[in-house]
Amino acid sequence: MPTKPLRGVKTPQGRTELRGRIWINGPEGIFFGYGRVALLEKIMEHGSIAKAAKSMHMAYRHAWDLVDSMNRQARTPYVELATGGRGGGGARVTEAGKQAIALFWQFHADLQAFLKREEKKLRL
Amino acid sequence: MPTKPLRGVKTPQGRTELRGRIWINGPEGIFFGYGRVALLEKIMEHGSIAKAAKSMHMAYRHAWDLVDSMNRQARTPYVELATGGRGGGGARVTEAGKQAIALFWQFHADLQAFLKREEKKLRL
Repeated sequence: MPTKPLRGVKTPQGRTELRGRIWINGPEGIFFGYGRVALLEKIMEHGSIAKAAKSMHMAYRHAWDLVDSMNRQARTPYVELATGGRGGGGARVTEAGKQAIALFWQFHADLQAFLKREEKKLRL
Repeated sequence: MPTKPLRGVKTPQGRTELRGRIWINGPEGIFFGYGRVALLEKIMEHGSIAKAAKSMHMAYRHAWDLVDSMNRQARTPYVELATGGRGGGGARVTEAGKQAIALFWQFHADLQAFLKREEKKLRL
């Protein structure tokens, strides 16, 4: 069904912009999204959940819960904890985690392209 | 750039789902989105901002602010207030408002199709 030009949506300044966000749901609800990707990237940078959390001004407990949620829902865990376990020790993002990050950013890029295409309907 | 199959994102149950949402920004920030569309549809149903707000368990003041924000940012107002003005009287969604609602749902349908296409990359 073709969409009619929508002149009413144009602002006087013509600065309307179609925006969007994506996330991945799993069996427990949210599984993967912008916040979790950012956390994984920080874990890659710092090699530790505690340091990653601190760099994002996030409570360690919250970061740990996010990692645990991803690891539970993913077929292969995204983060491996080194000896020292939950409290201390290091953390490593697995190959599966890195692939998930890459795919998410690919989805994000595809979404931006989609939004740009759709947005043209606002400017007719 | 082709995306590699991402087996790590599959859950054991295979119930991962790519989700998303869209909105339209204007010069003042948020201009149009799911909540505002729902409010306009309720105004169409009830012929009054107060009754629409009540049906959504929304404060009248908040509903009025949302309508005012849309009317300020749209080239043509989306809601016309009948005599009685801000406190009383009726409210009518204009043709421009109806077109905006239709376009938004078209964007939403296009987004769902986009998400379904992209989601296949999760199931490879």
